[in-house]
Amino acid sequence: MVSELTKIGVVAPASRIDEGLASRVQAIAREQFGGRVELVFHPQCFLSWRHFAGEDSARADAFVEVANDPAFDALWWARGGYGANRIADAVLPRLNESARKKLYLGYSDAGFLLAGLYKAAFRVAHGPVARDIQCPNGAEAISRALRFMMGAPESGDLEPSANEGKPLAAFNLTILSHLIGTPFEPDLSDHIVLLEDLSEPMYAVDRALFHVTSSPNIRKVVGLKLGRVSDVPPNEPDFAQTEEQVMRHWCEVSGIPYLGRADIGHDAENKIVPFGRGP
Amino acid sequence: MVSELTKIGVVAPASRIDEGLASRVQAIAREQFGGRVELVFHPQCFLSWRHFAGEDSARADAFVEVANDPAFDALWWARGGYGANRIADAVLPRLNESARKKLYLGYSDAGFLLAGLYKAAFRVAHGPVARDIQCPNGAEAISRALRFMMGAPESGDLEPSANEGKPLAAFNLTILSHLIGTPFEPDLSDHIVLLEDLSEPMYAVDRALFHVTSSPNIRKVVGLKLGRVSDVPPNEPDFAQTEEQVMRHWCEVSGIPYLGRADIGHDAENKIVPFGRGP
Repeated sequence: MVSELTKIGVVAPASRIDEGLASRVQAIAREQFGGRVELVFHPQCFLSWRHFAGEDSARADAFVEVANDPAFDALWWARGGYGANRIADAVLPRLNESARKKLYLGYSDAGFLLAGLYKAAFRVAHGPVARDIQCPNGAEAISRALRFMMGAPESGDLEPSANEGKPLAAFNLTILSHLIGTPFEPDLSDHIVLLEDLSEPMYAVDRALFHVTSSPNIRKVVGLKLGRVSDVPPNEPDFAQTEEQVMRHWCEVSGIPYLGRADIGHDAENKIVPFGRGP
Repeated sequence: MVSELTKIGVVAPASRIDEGLASRVQAIAREQFGGRVELVFHPQCFLSWRHFAGEDSARADAFVEVANDPAFDALWWARGGYGANRIADAVLPRLNESARKKLYLGYSDAGFLLAGLYKAAFRVAHGPVARDIQCPNGAEAISRALRFMMGAPESGDLEPSANEGKPLAAFNLTILSHLIGTPFEPDLSDHIVLLEDLSEPMYAVDRALFHVTSSPNIRKVVGLKLGRVSDVPPNEPDFAQTEEQVMRHWCEVSGIPYLGRADIGHDAENKIVPFGRGP
């Protein structure tokens, strides 16, 4: 599975990163994988326009350029943040046959595009992004992502659900909620769906789970697994339920099986979830 | 239109109020409308269970009790907050013919139930709730709500869109986003839809408008109007766009006509929007 050289293009469909962060990730790639991987950060990653890594058109163009370039084996998200939804319409119809051959890896806000790509039968996975170098033990997340994109994941790099023989999908809960009913929402029938979230108060987690589990499309899943729900701001008044209690409530109400915890989240432990039946 | 006595039942499908607030609203009703209106605060309004005004079953039961009681002419929301979505499934199938004859008035989180009620052809309106007594000039909002429920709105009590001859609907933007694709989402074809929001950073307003305007159901509306978007927390980095610029962006992307500002929001000026073609 390990080819001589894996060439990875990095783009930022949402928020920007700075050059220093890119250099630190390059250093890990060099130290750990020598000449076996080449990481190319598209200059668009460093643009700045309001909230975003460049204007919508610049972000869409960079994504299409890397996706359509046969020289790249994978397209990797520099980071999430906010903004992939704003370019989905401009990206998806422009992708060519070379774009179909590569792997797409990201999570969080990336879910907007991962969803649309998966719906169009591209090869996508939910997993660490370049900016995860900033997490505690972030280098492990970077190595995991690189091994996966090189086609050489180690034992433990993939989320354990990958061994269950069912098609998988993984999303940030808030992003999945914002995909429901849009043209980018994929058919998740018969999938195990893994959900994680960040920085949402518990009432908002509860409300998003109401939304997601009320959707007839989502009710066709095999079951839901709950990743980490981290950095939860205080709820006023105290919500008095853990994220797992909230998840169990909505699974019970909706009749969707709750299948337990998932090893994904906004942290360096975030394991890789290849969508569908694998990479 | 003015009957001898309008009897209004008040319930709290989401968050609680306290008895002091109810007394202040009662005093306004007495002072302004003497014996012409009777306000009955259901004891459920004052219950407290975690985030909510009582357990889900207590909130659902109180709603059904007041809705189904032929003695009441209107069901009025004590307040929004969070939680009406959690009881919609338990409320809607239990409503009887008396429930069809009354008027339902609320906004914000109430939108979850207003949506499901409107879908089932009940008479609903978006407007002030009892807790608005706490806003600056809150007594005006209370008087407006009472006049409307008494069938005697003054000039200026209804949002001006009521004169445009099109069916109307109004929602909190975040609530409408969480209704998309659920069984409670009404058919909004040919409606003018008025949106307002509170306490959401501008990137989240942008994301919710992406979601709402991407929905094929919403794309069938006559157009969108933008109410007030208030108490917006700082965006990091600065979003650098007003809520109206954000609204215009998504209307342009989606092809939905933007029809200008609406006089609704989380404040005492919040005018009344009867759903459909009127009360």
